[in-house]
Amino acid sequence: MKGAVLHAPGDVRFEERAEPAIVKPTDAVIRVAVTCVCGSDLWPYRGAQPIEGPTPMGHEYCGVVEEVGSEVRSVKPGQFVVGSFATSDNTCPHCRFGYPSSCVNREFMSAAQAPMLRVPHADGTLVPTPGMPSQDLLPSLLTISDVLGTGWFAAEAAGVKPGSTVAVVGDGAVGLLGVLSAKQMGAERIIAMSRHEARQRLAREFGATDIVTERGNEGVARIKDLTKGVGADAVLECVGTQESMWQAIRATRPGGGVGYVGVPHGVSLDGAELFFTHVRLHGGPAPVRRYLPNLIDLVWKGKIDPGKVFDLTLPLDQVAEGYRAMDQRRAIKALLRP
Amino acid sequence: MKGAVLHAPGDVRFEERAEPAIVKPTDAVIRVAVTCVCGSDLWPYRGAQPIEGPTPMGHEYCGVVEEVGSEVRSVKPGQFVVGSFATSDNTCPHCRFGYPSSCVNREFMSAAQAPMLRVPHADGTLVPTPGMPSQDLLPSLLTISDVLGTGWFAAEAAGVKPGSTVAVVGDGAVGLLGVLSAKQMGAERIIAMSRHEARQRLAREFGATDIVTERGNEGVARIKDLTKGVGADAVLECVGTQESMWQAIRATRPGGGVGYVGVPHGVSLDGAELFFTHVRLHGGPAPVRRYLPNLIDLVWKGKIDPGKVFDLTLPLDQVAEGYRAMDQRRAIKALLRP
Repeated sequence: MKGAVLHAPGDVRFEERAEPAIVKPTDAVIRVAVTCVCGSDLWPYRGAQPIEGPTPMGHEYCGVVEEVGSEVRSVKPGQFVVGSFATSDNTCPHCRFGYPSSCVNREFMSAAQAPMLRVPHADGTLVPTPGMPSQDLLPSLLTISDVLGTGWFAAEAAGVKPGSTVAVVGDGAVGLLGVLSAKQMGAERIIAMSRHEARQRLAREFGATDIVTERGNEGVARIKDLTKGVGADAVLECVGTQESMWQAIRATRPGGGVGYVGVPHGVSLDGAELFFTHVRLHGGPAPVRRYLPNLIDLVWKGKIDPGKVFDLTLPLDQVAEGYRAMDQRRAIKALLRP
Repeated sequence: MKGAVLHAPGDVRFEERAEPAIVKPTDAVIRVAVTCVCGSDLWPYRGAQPIEGPTPMGHEYCGVVEEVGSEVRSVKPGQFVVGSFATSDNTCPHCRFGYPSSCVNREFMSAAQAPMLRVPHADGTLVPTPGMPSQDLLPSLLTISDVLGTGWFAAEAAGVKPGSTVAVVGDGAVGLLGVLSAKQMGAERIIAMSRHEARQRLAREFGATDIVTERGNEGVARIKDLTKGVGADAVLECVGTQESMWQAIRATRPGGGVGYVGVPHGVSLDGAELFFTHVRLHGGPAPVRRYLPNLIDLVWKGKIDPGKVFDLTLPLDQVAEGYRAMDQRRAIKALLRP
């Protein structure tokens, strides 16, 4: 089969790779229905994160179980499943505490930008949908695997509650689905920070009540203006740079929370400054496995339509164009069909 | 009158100063019953924090109201009061959100190591006790002003709950009262990190179930050993150095919380490392004003005896010896009687 492999910054190739097979008795192999390019794929694509030789790419996936190992009990061939970008056994202390993305058996998935995919710890990682989904549900189901789950975690980690005033830093797909998540959690006011018209439109569609186009200290000043000088109750940091992190922290009221899910690159926090902000900080790789049942249910019942973040759909063999379009911000997020 | 003034690192003098008077109509002047030396006083005393000229010292106090300004309504002359080390109006949005130590009218108290003290925003800062306390209650009432309130905040910010496994980094008075606070909040297991026998003893008296003498990475490894490799649910960081902060973070389980109340000095947090720890971080100047009614009640009814942290009592004119004894760790905390 052919799949996406990153050879060097800017160099994604669709090339022949060995077809995945069951390696351990807890594995499953699935036939990928749809996959996509993640904002975090852009870090190595842009050379901001080193790779060690050619790297099979992709960690967002859903599809039909093709084969399972001898110890797999909770999923079976023929079922449609959604899985997390991080594997988990769903039984260890960290999983039981609600943090499956810190599972003692965690592996970060890769090689999902391909027609077939091996998923370790299938029982603890995959959740079947209630039945075989229609084609139009596929994009939304796919988002649950990472980008929606990550936006959801940003909102949860920031402490969004009914009535909250929320700000979202970052207008990528995670930020936009952070808006959707905050709305679902009952936020009353949602301020999306974006200077791109198409993204502003989608943010409003997902529940944003205000748009702020300023960035950095000016962006912080605007949030303060909009909140009578107080700051937001909860801020979702969905980028991962030094500027975006401090923008999020400084836009938060004392005692409010920052949920940070953009993988930090070059971020350093001065302890004394953080101390006097009185902000709560929580983040990390989203515990997507914990959210799967609820998010599948919301999508299955048509209560949310997170698949709208895909504004570009390509056949998998054009995966390189998907990276280019996202890198150049021509596309919010590229869906790939094997 | 005479009070404590820091002239240079190591140089605390007990010298003549102007007697405080009502400056604003919201002020009160109190006759200080007891005061003390704070761990945070040691930062400038040790030269780790610059001072701009001679600085009146002290921010922990309780005593009898001598005089109030024309707008003060909730306290009156003759009442015994306890106040926070940070003033607050107790009406601004930050106060109402539970963070009076980020009040828009916050001033950090100083000059409390003296017989008389001016307290700005008296209505929002001071809370009267149910009556005139007996002499033996004074040390415990004094701790509420800062050191107990700060240990209490560390436990609250770390998310201590009934049944929690807690670790406390720092065996100064704040750390020891963090142990007491965690116990009050229902922690089942409390691991105190200390290598000083007298402090270990007091930690056990306050509720510590385990003592760890190792520090840094070895200390982290011991906490992991004691928690079956998981880490503590909640860790109280009561020092404020780079080593203690990372010790706290690394000893915490994914999804667990670090409450940090040691004023950070030279602390820098790498965003990427923090991200993958999955730890919740919250801290800052303790919102003592919020705790005053409850903590006064606990002390008044004899349910807690936080005054035990004072293992040295001196007349105020020997304040310099109080600093020396704490600096050299000969005393946990020095109580001063004007």
